[in-house]
Amino acid sequence: MTNNKRIAVLGTGMVGQGIANKLISLGYDVMMGSREKANEKAVAFVTSHASTGRASNGTFAEAASYAEIMITATHGESILSILNGIGAAALANKIIVDISNPLDFSQGMPPSLSIVNTDSLGERIQRAFLSARIVKTLNTVNVDVMVNPKQLAERSDVFVSGNDAAAKATVVDLLKEFGWDAPLDLGDITTARGTEMYLALWIRLWPIVGNPHFNLKIVRAL
Amino acid sequence: MTNNKRIAVLGTGMVGQGIANKLISLGYDVMMGSREKANEKAVAFVTSHASTGRASNGTFAEAASYAEIMITATHGESILSILNGIGAAALANKIIVDISNPLDFSQGMPPSLSIVNTDSLGERIQRAFLSARIVKTLNTVNVDVMVNPKQLAERSDVFVSGNDAAAKATVVDLLKEFGWDAPLDLGDITTARGTEMYLALWIRLWPIVGNPHFNLKIVRAL
Repeated sequence: MTNNKRIAVLGTGMVGQGIANKLISLGYDVMMGSREKANEKAVAFVTSHASTGRASNGTFAEAASYAEIMITATHGESILSILNGIGAAALANKIIVDISNPLDFSQGMPPSLSIVNTDSLGERIQRAFLSARIVKTLNTVNVDVMVNPKQLAERSDVFVSGNDAAAKATVVDLLKEFGWDAPLDLGDITTARGTEMYLALWIRLWPIVGNPHFNLKIVRAL
Repeated sequence: MTNNKRIAVLGTGMVGQGIANKLISLGYDVMMGSREKANEKAVAFVTSHASTGRASNGTFAEAASYAEIMITATHGESILSILNGIGAAALANKIIVDISNPLDFSQGMPPSLSIVNTDSLGERIQRAFLSARIVKTLNTVNVDVMVNPKQLAERSDVFVSGNDAAAKATVVDLLKEFGWDAPLDLGDITTARGTEMYLALWIRLWPIVGNPHFNLKIVRAL
């Protein structure tokens, strides 16, 4: 467990709400960051948790200064511009938990990836902010599974990718609080290519399964 | 079960040998195709199964005319040139089971994919040979797992992609003979993007697992 009980969530959509609500339930203090502090979904999040006194809202920059851990819960493509707006100085040494995928809907459905194969969104963020500590994780599952993996019929796997061992350890502790028993450390941030490219299979499995509440389990030899 | 007991395997490497040996053990007649009929690995395959009288060797073209089902077990990049050498007329209506991946080792390890994201090797083969019936499958596992999935600690998943329902049904029957209980039909050949791109995760899992004998299982909600 990290001692740090403050986390910023960047983004107010379904993923941001799901993550932020889970963090509040786990006892964290959470600031939901958005472009405009008065974002109505961020205000609704704070209002819904008013009795706890632990939910707050702010601009992206305020969220970045609020916490040592930030979770990116916006569309993959917008993360780099949001982080650029915050600025490298404010991101130094921060743990940026990137749970997004660089989905490209411009060619219709199903989406392709806008960064792929010899690069990944995780790597691109790390290269853009060398003094931040990027950890890629949770991007292989729907938000409901992210925060409640035990809803599935059996234990399944989640992955972490990143260059900073201490940052990964902090994130692994957080994942365990979410209900992930044994996150698999794939290695440095280049391994984010693997989990981001798995999305191409995930989006094909969704209609087969009939809902987005599924995950993969690595099955090994006897 | 298909009534067709003849299968051609294109390729003499580890994957080709593994598939061909399995087919012989299942009672199929198998011709191993290679560039030169006298390929020493193809000859060794025939010799090792001489007592059965069911193993033979031939050129790629001879293999194509021998069977209604062909399994491609060569490096991904070479399949299109091999099939071009055979010619579209000889491939008309044939079931081509593509179990390969378009791995690109030119940038070093780990490999990237030479076809990716908005296209796949499976699709490219189908587009090149419109009257052939391409079924993409088994490309998500090591050859030892392909032919012996029950070596794993529990049931895991395999996928089929293809435009021709009858061809997929034939291949699913064959997969069941290999030991795959319930292959998942992902849809048309464009879904091969999903299984080919999963390779980017597979190659990162290999060192984590410590050996290539693993697979994924789709875990659903309770």
